Amino acid sequence: MYSKLNTNNGKLNPHVSVDCVIFGFDFEELKVLLIERGPHSSSLVDERSLTLPGNLIFDDEDLDTSAKRVLKELTGLDDIYLEQFYTFGDPNRVKNVHDQAWLKSVREEPSARVITVAYFSLVNLNSFTPQASSFAKKADWFPLSNIPDLAFDHNQILQKALLALKHKLHTEPVGFELLPEKFTLGQLQKLYEVILNASLDKRNFRRKILSKKVLIPLHEKQKGVPHKQAQLYSFDGNKYELMKKEFIGFDF
Amino acid sequence: MYSKLNTNNGKLNPHVSVDCVIFGFDFEELKVLLIERGPHSSSLVDERSLTLPGNLIFDDEDLDTSAKRVLKELTGLDDIYLEQFYTFGDPNRVKNVHDQAWLKSVREEPSARVITVAYFSLVNLNSFTPQASSFAKKADWFPLSNIPDLAFDHNQILQKALLALKHKLHTEPVGFELLPEKFTLGQLQKLYEVILNASLDKRNFRRKILSKKVLIPLHEKQKGVPHKQAQLYSFDGNKYELMKKEFIGFDF
Repeated sequence: MYSKLNTNNGKLNPHVSVDCVIFGFDFEELKVLLIERGPHSSSLVDERSLTLPGNLIFDDEDLDTSAKRVLKELTGLDDIYLEQFYTFGDPNRVKNVHDQAWLKSVREEPSARVITVAYFSLVNLNSFTPQASSFAKKADWFPLSNIPDLAFDHNQILQKALLALKHKLHTEPVGFELLPEKFTLGQLQKLYEVILNASLDKRNFRRKILSKKVLIPLHEKQKGVPHKQAQLYSFDGNKYELMKKEFIGFDF
Repeated sequence: MYSKLNTNNGKLNPHVSVDCVIFGFDFEELKVLLIERGPHSSSLVDERSLTLPGNLIFDDEDLDTSAKRVLKELTGLDDIYLEQFYTFGDPNRVKNVHDQAWLKSVREEPSARVITVAYFSLVNLNSFTPQASSFAKKADWFPLSNIPDLAFDHNQILQKALLALKHKLHTEPVGFELLPEKFTLGQLQKLYEVILNASLDKRNFRRKILSKKVLIPLHEKQKGVPHKQAQLYSFDGNKYELMKKEFIGFDF
């Protein structure tokens, strides 16, 4: 499959790219997957060398396929559900001097205007080990709390993706699949707190989440903790699908 | 302003277009604004001549500006808040024989792949009278319940826009600005029923909508109705802004 992805004989479309914002959750904080662009290095390029994984689409390729391919080619990440969230089209978005220096080293039409279609995903960081390839020199997770100046308009794309993730969390039960099969309400609250970057009131959180009836209380308690073992829950997949279809919110 | 919009000396970007899905609400049903493409008519083109208002962007123009310009040029509609909701990039989306026949009559590169960035809006149909110009021969409102085969992938774009509108309605109080300044809960329910294309349980609707505290009950009742004059409400703009910011839904 990998070789097939790389032997597309179509030509690159110099006018349209895809960029992927992959959020990684590890129960402590939210990180994002960035690459260091290579292979041609110069002091100009080095100064803003970190980017989201992204590249031009092939001219005969649909956008979703392109996003999956580009993510895999640059970082090795595969089998990730990517959701398109916004398209960025500032006429000057690739015209910065650092970006132009890099583009001149890798592109046939470095000064062409490029529209980028952006995708995002939320994954369990521990399930994926990024491996840089193609023009990526490195690929790694970076904490959202400490993101440097990125290439192109990628800081803006990242911020918009974070908004899209938060928005999604308000309309469907996001990220439950990142939890262990049996989890405590404390773990679930932590998930929401990390994504929202806010602390939530415990009682209020429990009341709201239980009212959605998407959790199944188990006849089991947490093990391996010294005291106050918490109730374990699992997650009702059918109810989840229903909630996605109906959107939670103004759920008349 | 209109002439200025038309004298952009930049060249069209043959690879990227914008399309606008304008939903019109008239208290009875939901309609959508379509144009009939001209001016070059042939039997081939005529068969699928209705399209969403859309066109190529200028190469030096950002996407939002382009959407506003194109909508105004084709239909005369101005000062409408347009929201980007999805980008469509099937490599064959302009390759249908009817579409190619039309494109050959108006475009320099009719067979070029075109990515389209789609926008939507919901307006009070009675506040806008479409007036066709540029390559639009006609511009008019069409009921969603009876949409013919449209050009390109515009049926698909329309369906996706409808989903986006419904989704939005579940995360913020959409469309309140389409109501008169003082309105009854019955009118508000009708708005939601028309958009959702479903009847809603009256008691349930009232309970939910009042719980959001975005309505201000007035010391006034409906006038000009024979009996059972309903309570009038107005709409708390500050609370609305707050709800937008916080997203209604999993509102911890």
